Amino acid sequence: MLNQWSHMSLSPILAQWVEAADTAGLTRQQQLYTLLKGAILDGRLAAGYRLPSSRQLAVDYRIARNTALHAYQQLLAEGFLVADRGGTRVAGLMPVQPQPAVDCDAARHPRLSQRAGRLQLRQGEAVLPFAPGLADLNAFPWGSWARQLQRAWGEVSARQLAYAAPGGEPMLRQALADYLRGRRGVLCSPEQVFIVPGAQLALDACARLLADPDDTVWLEEPCYPAARTAMTAAGLRIVPVPVDAEGMAPAEGLWQQRPPRLLYLTPAHQYPLGAVLSLERRLEFLRRIGDGWIIEDDYDSDFNHSHPNRPLPVLQGLNPEAPVIYVGTFSKLLYPGLRVAYMVVPHWAVRTFGEAVESLYRAGQAVEQRALARFLEGGILTRHARRMAPIYQARQLCLRDSLLQAFGRVGRICGGAAGLHLSLLLPEVRDDRAIVRRAAELGVTARPLSEYYAVAEAAANGLVLGYGMADVARIPELVARLAAATGDDARLDALHKAGRQ
Amino acid sequence: MLNQWSHMSLSPILAQWVEAADTAGLTRQQQLYTLLKGAILDGRLAAGYRLPSSRQLAVDYRIARNTALHAYQQLLAEGFLVADRGGTRVAGLMPVQPQPAVDCDAARHPRLSQRAGRLQLRQGEAVLPFAPGLADLNAFPWGSWARQLQRAWGEVSARQLAYAAPGGEPMLRQALADYLRGRRGVLCSPEQVFIVPGAQLALDACARLLADPDDTVWLEEPCYPAARTAMTAAGLRIVPVPVDAEGMAPAEGLWQQRPPRLLYLTPAHQYPLGAVLSLERRLEFLRRIGDGWIIEDDYDSDFNHSHPNRPLPVLQGLNPEAPVIYVGTFSKLLYPGLRVAYMVVPHWAVRTFGEAVESLYRAGQAVEQRALARFLEGGILTRHARRMAPIYQARQLCLRDSLLQAFGRVGRICGGAAGLHLSLLLPEVRDDRAIVRRAAELGVTARPLSEYYAVAEAAANGLVLGYGMADVARIPELVARLAAATGDDARLDALHKAGRQ
Repeated sequence: MLNQWSHMSLSPILAQWVEAADTAGLTRQQQLYTLLKGAILDGRLAAGYRLPSSRQLAVDYRIARNTALHAYQQLLAEGFLVADRGGTRVAGLMPVQPQPAVDCDAARHPRLSQRAGRLQLRQGEAVLPFAPGLADLNAFPWGSWARQLQRAWGEVSARQLAYAAPGGEPMLRQALADYLRGRRGVLCSPEQVFIVPGAQLALDACARLLADPDDTVWLEEPCYPAARTAMTAAGLRIVPVPVDAEGMAPAEGLWQQRPPRLLYLTPAHQYPLGAVLSLERRLEFLRRIGDGWIIEDDYDSDFNHSHPNRPLPVLQGLNPEAPVIYVGTFSKLLYPGLRVAYMVVPHWAVRTFGEAVESLYRAGQAVEQRALARFLEGGILTRHARRMAPIYQARQLCLRDSLLQAFGRVGRICGGAAGLHLSLLLPEVRDDRAIVRRAAELGVTARPLSEYYAVAEAAANGLVLGYGMADVARIPELVARLAAATGDDARLDALHKAGRQ
Repeated sequence: MLNQWSHMSLSPILAQWVEAADTAGLTRQQQLYTLLKGAILDGRLAAGYRLPSSRQLAVDYRIARNTALHAYQQLLAEGFLVADRGGTRVAGLMPVQPQPAVDCDAARHPRLSQRAGRLQLRQGEAVLPFAPGLADLNAFPWGSWARQLQRAWGEVSARQLAYAAPGGEPMLRQALADYLRGRRGVLCSPEQVFIVPGAQLALDACARLLADPDDTVWLEEPCYPAARTAMTAAGLRIVPVPVDAEGMAPAEGLWQQRPPRLLYLTPAHQYPLGAVLSLERRLEFLRRIGDGWIIEDDYDSDFNHSHPNRPLPVLQGLNPEAPVIYVGTFSKLLYPGLRVAYMVVPHWAVRTFGEAVESLYRAGQAVEQRALARFLEGGILTRHARRMAPIYQARQLCLRDSLLQAFGRVGRICGGAAGLHLSLLLPEVRDDRAIVRRAAELGVTARPLSEYYAVAEAAANGLVLGYGMADVARIPELVARLAAATGDDARLDALHKAGRQ
């Protein structure tokens, strides 16, 4: 059936084709193209090898003439074949290395960078009770949000679809400045507000635009792991500074020995232990920061359980001239997937910092930003916050109460004056990572406190527990499961009590 | 009127208040709080200073008792005042530095980092004809997109509102893998696809996760400025490699002298000069990359004017085992403000690279990702691309024709085989930045070609012109304005011709 054109090299290749008739939904032409390209790339069809004419190929393999013709044309266009008076030949290419079928020998592949190796990997985050950092997503006011989005889409023009204005949509910057002034005591004009896609990018921008590799950054110990990641990725030297009941507590000598270029703080509600940074320390940090910068991460202060109608004012508001970058997010009030966070920068840094941020991240999502602006202006967000505050407050008290009952003899509760999480300190003999693994098997998510520490030897054992998604009716039973996971003899008591409720 | 309680220090402070009656919509209580806090912070009310009782203050200043009471309570709660048997006193705080009214002395403020100073600042991007990199946003299929978004919002659950699944929504990763395989020849499974909020973050991730400070990266010269920014911000050493008609053309010795850890390429359509990277070079780069990595930026290959129905296949598809990170975006096919881009990583790097990406950027926008997946699966995107291809093709030809008429004697046109832009090379004597400034005054946006070069001495003069937003009916007149901005004697000719059309 094959005539003299069919060379030794070609027939085993095309035989493969005939055998593998159904190749993942490709057309006959694509199949022929792929087969020939593969054979050229791995050297089975050598440079200079002359192919039969498309007409001949069609006859030999009983395929449509067009199939052969188009496959040849594509290979010619891409440079795999060359055509001359002598016919169609394989181009003079160096073959690539033969492709191993499945290669599990990682050592043969290039590695990631060393800095990638130093990053703290994020653990999978389940949307389950006690996963820290999540608001009650079921309570989100969909109806209003969907209406605002619809309205914003209705107004859309080419400008809103292109990259957003530098710093974000002016409407949102204005609405945020008003909101932050009124609700958080941030002293700023709209020009000082920069919208960024997520708080982690805000921290990343601060780490890279305000500090150079080997510069010193003070982090709270324990600390928000994503802040540590941003600082590590930027090549900064991390100084872990212990926290006490009044927040970050640097030893007196530290200011001289290792003056911070960056000072990262969670003043409203230390993450994860929950201390409120005292006014004395706020003023001291402002006074001593010198030519460094303070990053004030106000990650979850929307809910203040101690003073529901009077949230603690921010450090930034104590001196709007100070080198403070205030960072906030809508993840807790709205939903994390929205990915809208913001920075407030000192008025004297608006131009320089703004230009640098713009060159690192292109702003988008103008439509969503407009919807959000209306959400703020219309007071919908404030009403939502006001509605949720007593719900979270009740969850916090219930969780506290259940933890006291189940762990009162061994554990100590930290934090809870604001935000959406508590921490439970456990005796050193307990391995919190093992407890968390066992709790996961029992369907409860918690985070080991020791994971939040930079220095493993200094790490306290415990559990960081978010109550944003935890219904009051379920909390006692969930805490009982946690107690079971700790393997304490408190376990039976706790289970017993939960059973009665 | 004031009794003995009114101390010398307090009366001038409260006099201010009475004078400035309307203070930006604050309540009386907020006004009093702000005034007293400011005076404590700047030392006008000294530590230990005893305030009148709230009752007395109310009487003295004719204000409601509750106004005084609540202002005092807030200041007590925040630690500015202390209460003891002797009454209410100012707490023992160190005052912060007095706040200058408006401080324009930048030298007194901390500076940004040195690396921030090395970033190439982005120029404002107007949504005007000839702004490079913009698709025709007016032609975007709103109706379909709005329906898909609405449907995705209708399906929303708490999971979609939380952080998105690592790597992105599984639906979108699957749809993209199919799309990229079929349309671009990318060989990948859905697990190899990672969704990121914007192509610039993809480049940023590659620069930081695949290379360390002082590692070598080869960039095309001229090059996409945002790629250079990402590499600079990551502290890499940039080697600018000239491009010719077949794309990046490294001198033979360069492989030994400065072997690249990263090799950044725009193979489909070199940005900005438009060369298509030849097959020989693609294979050579794959063969010689060693233990480095290739970044294939396929930024605008959705439109291939030379082979409309057969877009050039990607470098990644030549050897799916090779250390190639393929980067693509929806900015050109949909709209830039969507901020959805993607990376395809080798199957053997999925776990390590994926974990590192996750720790740098938290994924969100699950709702939009689901809408996008349906947009791809339903073939809406492909139909949109097919509809736009001849429109862009016509714009490209019209722009080319107009440029030849207006600049034929002095300029040379580069690129245009794919994508949405052309470059016009001009003689060295012309200052392209000055031309761009004059063009802007005439209402035409263009980018100076010299801006795309790392080495100023090597920079060619010219204009980078996007035609995505340029209607054919307007192109001749817009080009005439460009010619006027170059100040050439071609100008009068061009204006004359445009006037006739």
